[in-house]
Amino acid sequence: MKAYLSGWESLCASSSALRFIDTNLRGIGQVMFQDNPLSGALFLAAIVWGSIAAGMPQVAICGVLAVVAATLTAQLLHVDETALRAGLYGFNGVLVGLALATFIEPGPLLWWYVVLGAAVSVVAMSATANALKPLGIPTLTFPFVLVTWLLLLATYGFAGLGADALPADDVISPYESFDPAQLGVGDFLQATLLSISQVFLKASVVAALLFLAGLAINSVAAAVAAVGGAFLAVVTAHLLGAESDLITGGLLGFSPVLTAVALGSVFHPPGWRVAAYAALGTIFTVVAQAAFNVALTPIAIPALTGPFVLVTWMFLLPRQSFNRAAPGSR
Amino acid sequence: MKAYLSGWESLCASSSALRFIDTNLRGIGQVMFQDNPLSGALFLAAIVWGSIAAGMPQVAICGVLAVVAATLTAQLLHVDETALRAGLYGFNGVLVGLALATFIEPGPLLWWYVVLGAAVSVVAMSATANALKPLGIPTLTFPFVLVTWLLLLATYGFAGLGADALPADDVISPYESFDPAQLGVGDFLQATLLSISQVFLKASVVAALLFLAGLAINSVAAAVAAVGGAFLAVVTAHLLGAESDLITGGLLGFSPVLTAVALGSVFHPPGWRVAAYAALGTIFTVVAQAAFNVALTPIAIPALTGPFVLVTWMFLLPRQSFNRAAPGSR
Amino acid sequence: MKAYLSGWESLCASSSALRFIDTNLRGIGQVMFQDNPLSGALFLAAIVWGSIAAGMPQVAICGVLAVVAATLTAQLLHVDETALRAGLYGFNGVLVGLALATFIEPGPLLWWYVVLGAAVSVVAMSATANALKPLGIPTLTFPFVLVTWLLLLATYGFAGLGADALPADDVISPYESFDPAQLGVGDFLQATLLSISQVFLKASVVAALLFLAGLAINSVAAAVAAVGGAFLAVVTAHLLGAESDLITGGLLGFSPVLTAVALGSVFHPPGWRVAAYAALGTIFTVVAQAAFNVALTPIAIPALTGPFVLVTWMFLLPRQSFNRAAPGSR
Repeated sequence: MKAYLSGWESLCASSSALRFIDTNLRGIGQVMFQDNPLSGALFLAAIVWGSIAAGMPQVAICGVLAVVAATLTAQLLHVDETALRAGLYGFNGVLVGLALATFIEPGPLLWWYVVLGAAVSVVAMSATANALKPLGIPTLTFPFVLVTWLLLLATYGFAGLGADALPADDVISPYESFDPAQLGVGDFLQATLLSISQVFLKASVVAALLFLAGLAINSVAAAVAAVGGAFLAVVTAHLLGAESDLITGGLLGFSPVLTAVALGSVFHPPGWRVAAYAALGTIFTVVAQAAFNVALTPIAIPALTGPFVLVTWMFLLPRQSFNRAAPGSR
Repeated sequence: MKAYLSGWESLCASSSALRFIDTNLRGIGQVMFQDNPLSGALFLAAIVWGSIAAGMPQVAICGVLAVVAATLTAQLLHVDETALRAGLYGFNGVLVGLALATFIEPGPLLWWYVVLGAAVSVVAMSATANALKPLGIPTLTFPFVLVTWLLLLATYGFAGLGADALPADDVISPYESFDPAQLGVGDFLQATLLSISQVFLKASVVAALLFLAGLAINSVAAAVAAVGGAFLAVVTAHLLGAESDLITGGLLGFSPVLTAVALGSVFHPPGWRVAAYAALGTIFTVVAQAAFNVALTPIAIPALTGPFVLVTWMFLLPRQSFNRAAPGSR
Repeated sequence: MKAYLSGWESLCASSSALRFIDTNLRGIGQVMFQDNPLSGALFLAAIVWGSIAAGMPQVAICGVLAVVAATLTAQLLHVDETALRAGLYGFNGVLVGLALATFIEPGPLLWWYVVLGAAVSVVAMSATANALKPLGIPTLTFPFVLVTWLLLLATYGFAGLGADALPADDVISPYESFDPAQLGVGDFLQATLLSISQVFLKASVVAALLFLAGLAINSVAAAVAAVGGAFLAVVTAHLLGAESDLITGGLLGFSPVLTAVALGSVFHPPGWRVAAYAALGTIFTVVAQAAFNVALTPIAIPALTGPFVLVTWMFLLPRQSFNRAAPGSR
């Protein structure tokens, strides 16, 4: 594996076209914190599969268009070269493209809207990184969430962009009560896998397995955290009595999956204390996801990964040190 | 008084059990900025009285459960020992416990929800403190407000947690117009006292007097600021034509009371200029409270002490110096 | 021109009354970033004309009352003298006065409400400036937006302040769909001019020309940016299919105008790269304006210049350097 990657790196060093492809693949990989072109390629395969399986090939096309537009914008703005090559200016763009194409019906304006969103996501990324520098915390997917919320909200004011996947007829809809069903083993398994694929707005078991492969190829700890976080989120949501369709569709689990990967494998060294801390964050992300769903009901936009961003910032800001031996506690 | 407290301090130094009790009492005291176990004990008595008087003893139990859970979490996370012992990791927990038990109906899940909220309030406290360090302003009750808003919003998505004190049937309810009534002297007195007890979500005159005693025992200035702030808030709300039931129930005054205590007695030295500045902040907190009530109507959660946090931050950030003699003003 | 201004400056130096007038005129000028008493005087003339033309002379009176109240408050709080004299503690006050008088019906409480809002806008200005100092970005009109949102929201809770220009009967109103019309050349011209006058909440072509004169007298680049930004915003909104009445009334263009002036003439040196960057920001401000309009529908308050603040912060935070020659880009 390492040999293949260093061979690929040599090729990229000698070809700006390959370097460009490498940068974009890493951008896709960074959606789940993986600075690895092969992870990005597997994630891309999952996106393509999931989009075609859902009968929406334009979603995958918009995702690719967006990451390319984001990378080009970043080059025009002369952002930091190291961060650019690591894909840090691409992952918000991919997500903007996937989200816009998922919620807005296809049409000529959609493509321009995706390019606009991807370009602005680069500015938002740079702005967020500078704003958070004094606090020492990462941007996570905040730029994606902010830019996409604005773009989706605006569709209600623009007749040129019909957002048929949003409840456009009646922006103000009351939150409806429901009866949760009892889930079986198969439901739990599906819910866990779809929680992973929904990180990329996909509801597909095959895509979920490709995403897991992309994670495992670069970081086994990340793959374990993703599966563990997804399962914990599904169990938590079920115990609290969440709506069964939301659980089995993976719609309450994708933010917690990202929290689990971030807190459990990316920003802390592995260990039992870290696992416990990440588990607390993961459980609270389920609460935050349900809260965002309710809070955004009156304005009819999806929570996206907002709950992940909020809770993970909250759990990173204390800068818990998990390296030192525990000082003499009571 | 001082002799008693130093005797108690000696006892705590020799017993970790007493130290634990001391830490928790100070946590309760810090809800109103009082780092004094006796203030905490009087506040606790007020909480117990107010809860039993309202026929909701579980509220007091959840408050105690929450502060203990918060203190234990803070110990597990090895937070700063000085801040912990001063009760700074407990006051958000108490409030989370009181609020959840006030708005959610009793049941087995409620206890777990309180423990979860109390534990996360410690993380949120540590995160907020770090985030605000560059700005030089205190966390106030922001961690409580943030965590409780998320936990209450989420109940609409969780069938296991019926929030019968929230308008769950119809999350989206329009703000209704009303006719303010003329208030008499007795109304003003009740409104002033309940504005103080509502800081702890209690509507009880006896509890209000116990809270005032707890304040006065540690800081006469704080008690004076609380009464003055409450009265000013009630008069302001009445002059502006606020709904009478909200005024007499203390529901427009509890945030202003905290603003008055913070700006008038805790973070500035006493004096006429400070009193005028605190009065402006107190009056504007009444406006902010009314504004939050309207803004949160569509998502059906209470404002809690959010208005206090916002306005007090706004008035502390300018770092007005009230020590120097006024330079030759025009 | 320069001779007149330096003569005026000598007069101000010898008279505290003239200095006071100078400070207030600069405060009005700073609404559009112009530290020039003559710009302020022309803006004031535009405000008076626009208010009388709309049959609402109280709006102009409240604007003047507010800027005077803000300046006096700033003197009482001993703010930085240089910033005060440059009008930086006045522009939020003017806008608070204009907005409150535009949306709230006249009555004795309105005057007190304006004075309260103007005084608090000074505290909010100082707080925002301190909070943003570590980030190196300007406050823009954030203090105005924050304070006015709270004051307008609160009117729904205060019977003494009827906000007849707000949909008070039914705070929760669904966003309604619409059919955009085809616009002619005259419509585009009107839309462009009203987008400029709406910065001061005025719908008047004459006022727009006076505002442009006030800009041009101090900065031709600012006037060009204002016209260019307004036109770009109108075209963008029309292409995206925005409601025609909003476009021709200048209601989707006033925030983009401010973004264009700020990014294109105030905070960056002129040039093609700056123009392109400012154009991207201006276009995205149209999206943000539409988004804010939708998001604020459930709580029935106007977006004010919130979209301008958000997008301009987003585009200033990356601290794009437009001075250096572009390093060898691909």
